[in-house]
Amino acid sequence: MSGNTTGVLFRVTTWGESHGPALGAVIDGCPPLIELTEADIQTELARRKPGQAEASSPRKEGDRVEILSGVFEGQTTGTPISLIIWNRDVRSGDYEALRNVFRPGHGDYTYEQKYGIRDHRGGGRASGRETASRVAAGAIARKILAREGIMVRAYTLALGGVKAEAGIVAEAGRNRFNCPDPVGATKMEAALKKAQKEGDTLGGIVEIIVQGCPAGLGTPVFDKLDADLAKALMGIGTVKGVEIGAGFAAAGMTGSQCNDQLLPSGFAANNAGGILAGIASGQDLVIRAACKPIPSLTMEQDTVDINGNPVKLTIGGRHDVSVIPRILPVCEAMVCLVLVDHLLRQRAIARSSAE
Amino acid sequence: MSGNTTGVLFRVTTWGESHGPALGAVIDGCPPLIELTEADIQTELARRKPGQAEASSPRKEGDRVEILSGVFEGQTTGTPISLIIWNRDVRSGDYEALRNVFRPGHGDYTYEQKYGIRDHRGGGRASGRETASRVAAGAIARKILAREGIMVRAYTLALGGVKAEAGIVAEAGRNRFNCPDPVGATKMEAALKKAQKEGDTLGGIVEIIVQGCPAGLGTPVFDKLDADLAKALMGIGTVKGVEIGAGFAAAGMTGSQCNDQLLPSGFAANNAGGILAGIASGQDLVIRAACKPIPSLTMEQDTVDINGNPVKLTIGGRHDVSVIPRILPVCEAMVCLVLVDHLLRQRAIARSSAE
Amino acid sequence: MSGNTTGVLFRVTTWGESHGPALGAVIDGCPPLIELTEADIQTELARRKPGQAEASSPRKEGDRVEILSGVFEGQTTGTPISLIIWNRDVRSGDYEALRNVFRPGHGDYTYEQKYGIRDHRGGGRASGRETASRVAAGAIARKILAREGIMVRAYTLALGGVKAEAGIVAEAGRNRFNCPDPVGATKMEAALKKAQKEGDTLGGIVEIIVQGCPAGLGTPVFDKLDADLAKALMGIGTVKGVEIGAGFAAAGMTGSQCNDQLLPSGFAANNAGGILAGIASGQDLVIRAACKPIPSLTMEQDTVDINGNPVKLTIGGRHDVSVIPRILPVCEAMVCLVLVDHLLRQRAIARSSAE
Amino acid sequence: MSGNTTGVLFRVTTWGESHGPALGAVIDGCPPLIELTEADIQTELARRKPGQAEASSPRKEGDRVEILSGVFEGQTTGTPISLIIWNRDVRSGDYEALRNVFRPGHGDYTYEQKYGIRDHRGGGRASGRETASRVAAGAIARKILAREGIMVRAYTLALGGVKAEAGIVAEAGRNRFNCPDPVGATKMEAALKKAQKEGDTLGGIVEIIVQGCPAGLGTPVFDKLDADLAKALMGIGTVKGVEIGAGFAAAGMTGSQCNDQLLPSGFAANNAGGILAGIASGQDLVIRAACKPIPSLTMEQDTVDINGNPVKLTIGGRHDVSVIPRILPVCEAMVCLVLVDHLLRQRAIARSSAE
Repeated sequence: MSGNTTGVLFRVTTWGESHGPALGAVIDGCPPLIELTEADIQTELARRKPGQAEASSPRKEGDRVEILSGVFEGQTTGTPISLIIWNRDVRSGDYEALRNVFRPGHGDYTYEQKYGIRDHRGGGRASGRETASRVAAGAIARKILAREGIMVRAYTLALGGVKAEAGIVAEAGRNRFNCPDPVGATKMEAALKKAQKEGDTLGGIVEIIVQGCPAGLGTPVFDKLDADLAKALMGIGTVKGVEIGAGFAAAGMTGSQCNDQLLPSGFAANNAGGILAGIASGQDLVIRAACKPIPSLTMEQDTVDINGNPVKLTIGGRHDVSVIPRILPVCEAMVCLVLVDHLLRQRAIARSSAE
Repeated sequence: MSGNTTGVLFRVTTWGESHGPALGAVIDGCPPLIELTEADIQTELARRKPGQAEASSPRKEGDRVEILSGVFEGQTTGTPISLIIWNRDVRSGDYEALRNVFRPGHGDYTYEQKYGIRDHRGGGRASGRETASRVAAGAIARKILAREGIMVRAYTLALGGVKAEAGIVAEAGRNRFNCPDPVGATKMEAALKKAQKEGDTLGGIVEIIVQGCPAGLGTPVFDKLDADLAKALMGIGTVKGVEIGAGFAAAGMTGSQCNDQLLPSGFAANNAGGILAGIASGQDLVIRAACKPIPSLTMEQDTVDINGNPVKLTIGGRHDVSVIPRILPVCEAMVCLVLVDHLLRQRAIARSSAE
Repeated sequence: MSGNTTGVLFRVTTWGESHGPALGAVIDGCPPLIELTEADIQTELARRKPGQAEASSPRKEGDRVEILSGVFEGQTTGTPISLIIWNRDVRSGDYEALRNVFRPGHGDYTYEQKYGIRDHRGGGRASGRETASRVAAGAIARKILAREGIMVRAYTLALGGVKAEAGIVAEAGRNRFNCPDPVGATKMEAALKKAQKEGDTLGGIVEIIVQGCPAGLGTPVFDKLDADLAKALMGIGTVKGVEIGAGFAAAGMTGSQCNDQLLPSGFAANNAGGILAGIASGQDLVIRAACKPIPSLTMEQDTVDINGNPVKLTIGGRHDVSVIPRILPVCEAMVCLVLVDHLLRQRAIARSSAE
Repeated sequence: MSGNTTGVLFRVTTWGESHGPALGAVIDGCPPLIELTEADIQTELARRKPGQAEASSPRKEGDRVEILSGVFEGQTTGTPISLIIWNRDVRSGDYEALRNVFRPGHGDYTYEQKYGIRDHRGGGRASGRETASRVAAGAIARKILAREGIMVRAYTLALGGVKAEAGIVAEAGRNRFNCPDPVGATKMEAALKKAQKEGDTLGGIVEIIVQGCPAGLGTPVFDKLDADLAKALMGIGTVKGVEIGAGFAAAGMTGSQCNDQLLPSGFAANNAGGILAGIASGQDLVIRAACKPIPSLTMEQDTVDINGNPVKLTIGGRHDVSVIPRILPVCEAMVCLVLVDHLLRQRAIARSSAE
């Protein structure tokens, strides 16, 4: 278990480096008889594609996914689904200057410490590009969840210090941040432009809401549903914090404020974020992830090379100003993977209890 | 994998209900030839024992751990270590009134939804009491880490809305919250007393600092060190949020603020919290967990019974006002379990790279 | 994963040494709402109890199992079931002479090589006594299987070179070997007596038959049903060979002899032993395990001590002449554990395919 | 865990159907800094290539493996290694007649029962072709083992009822069965020709010998080294029996015959096959696998279609007469995968014991 696989029953293994020939995922444990085409996956991949706007990277990845196994005549067969995305438009030469230099905020230094070797081109395995595999796998999970009426959607709550005021979710789709506050979204655009001009980058906060999650999903103790969600989101390179429901604000509440009382009509509030003692309550799941600013700056930075010598570093190449909005489908994918795994796990024990 | 086991190589399985005959843990994968006695574990258990102060529960658990296997003549043998803690002083009758009622903020409702049955006495498996098993197992992990010079310590950063101002870590040991700010600690005491008088409860924020963590621990992609830490902490029932390094504050920073630049003398800052791309950098690990207020209130609350009928609920029994400070050794234990597992995982691949 | 846990969804971890205070098992993943009492388990434990006949060990273990968790008011709750069996009648002094000596055919030498330490008393963790934990866990699996109409039974096919002629299964219950050939059973008794007189021990062959196994259990490629059964049985210390259906005899057949042709009324034969491509066909499962003779001999043997010095060894103490018949419930337990795990795994994907 | 992954630390997931676009494997957990090229893998793949002789299948697979990730400038990086083999020369039309018919001895019927859908072309996922992925992954394991002086080699002991008399291992390389008995090898050739003429197929017995296996590999109880080897080999579609050392013959021995006594110069015999109590003793590992005859016959057979109607079936297409010798590298690969996994697992705990 070297960290590239997630899930107990719906297991996803991703592979591939940013500037190798390809990257992909193997999904083992997908139930049979699910209708699946490459177009289902392509739709999600398009959402994380760069190049749509001034503040995003001009690199055109044009990711095309191919299904190599596990699907027969349009349906899953229950055998492993192998997905591949070829790396096109890779210019490794761009990275030659970084062969022996550690970019601040990147995994260059720690990969070198861990393995004694690394593929320096574009971050190699630690590149954000790896998340394309996750989005592809998540698209399959999403199809299974949809059959059960479970819907996962990510929103931008903050970007570059601009916070969305409470807004109407239906508005979210009208801006590229999927921000429910249209005024906030406009300010976020401005913040992005400003940062880009300064050669700097921005972070933000994403909220993921799950509708239709059946009560009972999740397990006690270590694999609590919120624990698995926290791991899934913190496992995205950019994420530095995760909270559920009231989250950090709960630390400042009293019990009488924080408890979601139960009425015959249902829960009176949702400070729990839809999860009690690690198990879904049937309410909406509410999860937030804090994303740090992208560490690749065109501004000059101090760093060292592999021999410990000081280096003044200016990173060229093609980089986004913020992981938002491209990170939204990645967050959704990770949440989908957790939910479908727990859905299958629950099925394994549920028939007995129904007897 | 039903959620009661954690770890890949250093695997801990806990078992036991709050009011059953006993609870315990089985640790499989502990390296041989580690000196271990029951006293090593007892020391840690004492730190989560209730009844030390007015704001903590008057129930005297008096937990005594017994080692039933895996230790021979004072040393671990490499075989499973079975730990047992007998439940004494259990008064199940206290809970009879709760047999068919769902306490707000507890797992009562969700366990019922998941399993169709639950041991209602004291929360059963979902009781905070289960964490005694984790602390016991964590004490073994701590011994292994200590041999490598790795030290894990938890501090109280906030309690009942009172935030610790930046303080001197050395001061922490002088108050029961292990709060580095002595003035803050005094205010926290006052907040606890006030809440207790009102029949209410309080939450807080815990910070865990790991010193001596070797660079290279952690794995890429899904089992990032921070991802596993987030899962471990979010898997504590009371925790609603986890952040690493700058955490949620990173979302409001620019890249030039957030990046920890590298100098020949080392990193210039530690916004990363000691983890880059999921792998330890050799800096201190800095992790924070947000704890919700204890949901057992003596104040009257609205809830429903198993048939959906409304109930006015007042919870008696013996309960703390806050999980702080008893949660501190639990947080430490969970961090220790993650670290020792990644330490062993790294050993498996490290010899090769050393050749 | 240090070898003391088996199963993916129905997970059993055993712990305990032969002469430590106790041994036991934790079962995680048992579905809720299964009726379970200690008597259910005690029945199976009684079948592996020594002391029933002249050729078995005079040590009276008198194993009593206690359920410490996971069962509430007579039903499983879905949380971990902790089982404990206290070691009584342990005379560790019997083994002091073996502290630094490696008994031939035992794990003494290899445990020392692996761990650099071992509990030498009675074989410690490698003792056959560890199988009591498996039988206890298997008893729970058996209850779940029985609800589905799946029945697992082990028979003696050979003992001390005496082979059972084809016999009537209904006869098996009338002799303590559960041998379908009554004449053969009588010869086996004679062989046991002769060996005991000579201070020697005997091996044998066990056949396990599973009736009612639903078609579809098992998974492709690595976790084939027969692969998991082979592992489960080969994981019993005494077993040196496992075969399914025609087994080794299949190697000498032609395809036209070996293939089980299909007729509208069903399969025409069962050379496959009920498993095709790793997945159950709905026929009876037929599995055989070869058991080596018990290595503890009262005859003098050559061996070495921990310093490599030659030693003439005569093993005293209380030992059986053959693992048969005590191994029968152990074999059944291991098969039950494999089947219930695959049963739950199949449930996880089956609902989808049923839609 | 749907059966397509093996290993704890050196984890291999295979994917792909016989007549899909490609098949492959992802290896996660390979230590870094191992020199690896496609040629290393190609060498092993060539050994399972069909078409070398009259008794083997005329289909020319011409498998070419590509490494898509995890290798940088000729060395492994510690990240997942993705291997792909494109399916060329696939004539799916050959199989159209088999869409709704269950071939005797194949997985057609059981896959249908399990999943409710199957890729009928050439056996789909259950095809022997899947083993190409295993051989490819095994080639990497073999490289790591070679660095430790561990050598794995498979021999033919029997084919079509012809048994090899005790022979000189050095002779084995001179015949395509790697049979140490040259006279036996000649008779095996004759048996193959005869069976081919009759439209029938043959089984056989393979012996795998591991030299240089360090004492201490393997774990106690469930994941014994022999248990994992048994699973690995029984997980090859053709294998119906596995034995270690004396194997089934041990069942007829007495303890005094079977025990390998220890002398200052080492073990006096190797009936244990190099494994005691599940842990390697430092002797050669000796494992045998019984292979059934290939079930695809050109002779007419009785079977049924998906509606239960009787069908007279004659299988055309390109098929071998026996899995031997092509199965030899597959058996070796599976043994290599088990050994490298246990090698890494032992490293994780060994440093402690060495201190």
